[in-house]
Parts: sequence; structure tokens; C-alpha cells
Amino acid sequence: MNKQQLFENIKKKQSFLCVGLDTDIKKIPQHLLSEEDPIFAFNKAIIDATADYCVAYKPNLAFYESLGTKGMMAFEKTVAYLRENYPDQFIIADAKRGDIGNTSEMYARSFFDHIKVDAVTVAPYMGEDSVKPFLIYPEAWVILLALTSNKGSHDFQMTEDANGERLFEKVLKKSQEWANDEQMMYVVGATQGKMFLDIRKQAPNHFLLVPGVGAQGGSLAEVAQYGMNDQCGLLVNSSRAIIYADKTEAFANVAREAAHAVQKEMAGYLHDKGIIPCKA
Amino acid sequence: MNKQQLFENIKKKQSFLCVGLDTDIKKIPQHLLSEEDPIFAFNKAIIDATADYCVAYKPNLAFYESLGTKGMMAFEKTVAYLRENYPDQFIIADAKRGDIGNTSEMYARSFFDHIKVDAVTVAPYMGEDSVKPFLIYPEAWVILLALTSNKGSHDFQMTEDANGERLFEKVLKKSQEWANDEQMMYVVGATQGKMFLDIRKQAPNHFLLVPGVGAQGGSLAEVAQYGMNDQCGLLVNSSRAIIYADKTEAFANVAREAAHAVQKEMAGYLHDKGIIPCKA
Repeated sequence: MNKQQLFENIKKKQSFLCVGLDTDIKKIPQHLLSEEDPIFAFNKAIIDATADYCVAYKPNLAFYESLGTKGMMAFEKTVAYLRENYPDQFIIADAKRGDIGNTSEMYARSFFDHIKVDAVTVAPYMGEDSVKPFLIYPEAWVILLALTSNKGSHDFQMTEDANGERLFEKVLKKSQEWANDEQMMYVVGATQGKMFLDIRKQAPNHFLLVPGVGAQGGSLAEVAQYGMNDQCGLLVNSSRAIIYADKTEAFANVAREAAHAVQKEMAGYLHDKGIIPCKA
Repeated sequence: MNKQQLFENIKKKQSFLCVGLDTDIKKIPQHLLSEEDPIFAFNKAIIDATADYCVAYKPNLAFYESLGTKGMMAFEKTVAYLRENYPDQFIIADAKRGDIGNTSEMYARSFFDHIKVDAVTVAPYMGEDSVKPFLIYPEAWVILLALTSNKGSHDFQMTEDANGERLFEKVLKKSQEWANDEQMMYVVGATQGKMFLDIRKQAPNHFLLVPGVGAQGGSLAEVAQYGMNDQCGLLVNSSRAIIYADKTEAFANVAREAAHAVQKEMAGYLHDKGIIPCKA
């Protein structure tokens, strides 16, 4: 999916919500455990319930890998289900990969050739040749970690060099030599508040993938205020606050309501910015 | 496996070789493709042929993931085979993970609880809470990326802060607040030459996992000269130069000879350092 298509979907849905599929066998409703593939059954129900209110899904690979091959099968089935039934959804493999050239090539082959997602999250520590192999696939996106939502983000990402440039700013700047805003996005945590202003100085036109709203305490209002650009430029992820909103047999409906509430708030911000004509 | 056991194995085998299992279905000998699980068949043959000359194996997750669930099954079978038949081998899952706390927990569960490797490579970009969940498992190791072997290592890792401290040095220093040398190692590329002296200033006692000898052009002599400490402190990885030394039906024997040649060179350096009494 290209950038313009993503923006069109955002306007159509009046939403820039990404639902994070952090599906944990220990947290899904009990009654699903009798299903042949409980993880996929949960994902399918969540997707069917929330697809009206979001433009993207982000399965978090750790949750699938922790179940071994069974988990990876559920991941692949989830992507295939989205592709077939909701082709307008942007699919992000949240994998935070990044390795030397020939290894990154294998990861890229895995995600773009074999599983066929739209985007992969990538860690920048190893530099250019760890990122570039992901960029050879047409219409495939790299979402590079810039300023993450966790407390540890301050350990290294905020380190200033001799000229006062912080590491995350260097990542933003340097990586724009590798790809433009049609193929690269950045991860910026919702907990970073006014730091979005600094991000936008370096990357005014890029889409930002923003985790950390909900369970991690980030504010959607702040993210919209400081991070939104004329083409929205935001995909705000919520995982636990939506998919685990309820743990009874009504979980899918409650997830739908939770997603709807976020979408309504988002429609307001899109309206304020003049991106959509009227509030939903 | 603890640090002392690893050192004992190094002395016994007169080797600090780690064989990298970067097993690529496109590169293994043709005749294996008729096997039920060609990847595992290749790994088993390589392990049986080289185990006398190495102390560790490092399956590179990208290569297994790129084949989907089939690949992950081959990975799990490989680890189980090593555990059962070569319990004195140190097993490293080269995964370069690193994510927010609850996600890193899932990765840790996957590698240490489910698959049961000795160590996982972890990327430091996201800081403390992305690393710590790996440290709760007893006798489990984190191998943190410090100064990697690739060209892109210079993009960010060498960035100096206002006090002249480079990012990789900051990673070495900061991470020692999280775990000591009984639970943490560092990745330092063999291509970094005299930089090992700077690494040893910050981490005199830690084991270093050193990729980049062989296909990537690093020098084993230099690594031993600048990086070895009194307890060896090195695991030098070679992947392609050993496992793809030959592509005929004789591949395993040729891999054995390649591993033996490296082991003999290593025995010399261990002797020079006074760690073992006589040359092999």
C-alpha cells in the first residue's frame, strides 16, 4: 500500500487507529481455549469487530514466537485472513529486526516475500546496511525505531553528540539518505509529548507509528496536537486497551466499542486539522 | 551454562570457535533437498562433523524464519538435537531482539523457557527495560550488540557525545548496571581490529561474541591479539567459511576440516596467552 492510499483510508474511515495484535494465550478469554487455534480465533474475532474503526493492524511477533511453530502458524493465518477479507488494512509486522546485510535480506524475504505484510519495524543500531535490504521490495515499508515509548528510551536515544544532536535525531536525519517518506516511517512513542515537535522538525512529512497510548499512558490528544501533519502522518497504535477491554464471551463487542471510542476521538482531531469535513 | 563451565570447555577443546548455523535452503548441497527436513539434515551433519572443534553454535534466526513454520521447526529440532547429543555446547539464538518490557518478556519466554538456548543476542537501542526481562532466567545470557562487524556500524555506534564517549562505549558502561559478566556478553565485530583495546578498557572480563571472521574479512589473529583476556573472553563465530566450505556430498567432512583448521589456529593463541599448556 502506498502513502496516498493509506491517507485515503484514513479520510474514509476518519481514523488513524492501528490495532495491536499482542495476542497472549494467557490473556484471551477462557472459552476460546477449546478452539483448534485459539490465537487465530481470537485475532479473527477482534479483526471482524474492529476493522470498521481502524486502518492498520500490528501483530507483535514476540507474542507469536513465544508459542513456537504453533504461534507462527497463527501469525501467518492472521495476515492471510486480513489480506483476503480486509485488503484496505495496512499490516505491520512488529518485529524490530536489524542485522548485517545478508541476514536482514533473509528477514526481508520472510516478511515481504513469504508472509506479505506491508511494513516491518526495524531497529537502527546497526546502520545503513542493516536497513537497506528491506527497501528493495516495491510498496514495502520500513518503520524505523526513532524515539520509543518506554522508560529505557532515555538510556541511549536522547544522548547528545558534540553538536547537541540527539541520537534519535541523527537516526531521523541519516535514514532519510536511505529512503524517503514513501517507504519509511518512524516509531515515536505516545509518551514523548512535546518531543513530537522536535521529530516534526526532522521529518515533517513522514508517517509516524505511535505506540504507547492506552496501557502505557500516552495521550492521544497530545500526539495529535504535536504530531499531526496535513496528511495526518500518524498511525496511533493501541493494543491492550482494545483487545483486552473485556475477557468474557462479549470480548469482541467490547473491543469494537473501545475501538469506536478511539475512532471518534480521532475523527475530532482530523476535523480540527481540516483533513475531514465534519465530525463523525 | 555458566562462565566457568564455558571457560573449562574452551580449555578442554583448545578452541573458542562458535559455528554459525546460517542455514540457507538455497546454499545447502543439492542432495539434501530430498530429505524430509533438509535444513535440519544439514545442521545435524554439520554439528556431528564440527562439534569436536567448537564450543558453541549460533543459529541465526533470520534464516529459519524466512522459511516460515517449517524453518522454525528446523530451528527447534536443531536446538533439541544439540541439547541431547552435545550438552557441553553453548547455544546462542542470534535474534537481535529488543522491545518494550512486556514484549521482551515474551521473547525471553520463547528462547529460554520454550526453546531453551543458553543466550540470545539483544539490540540495545531501547535501553534498560528492553534488556532486563532476558536476565530473569537463571544461567541465561544476554549478548548485547556493542560494536558490530558491518559497515553501517559507523552510522550510529561511533557517534561521540559531548564528552567524547562513543555510543558503543556508553552501551558497554550503562549495561553493566543491569548485569555483570556472569550473565552478559557483548557482540564486537572481528572487523574492528584495534578497537578491541577500547572495548577491553570498558569490559575487561566479559566474554565477547565476535562475528565477522571469514566471509566478512575479519582477522582471527588481530581479534586474539587485542581481544583475548586471561579467561579467553572470546567466542569467535564463523558461519559461511565453515558450513559452506564445500557443496558436494563431502560437505560435512570439508566443514570438519575447516573447523579443525580454525581450532588449531585458536589453540596457538590460547597457548601464547598461557591459557593452555601446549599447542594442539
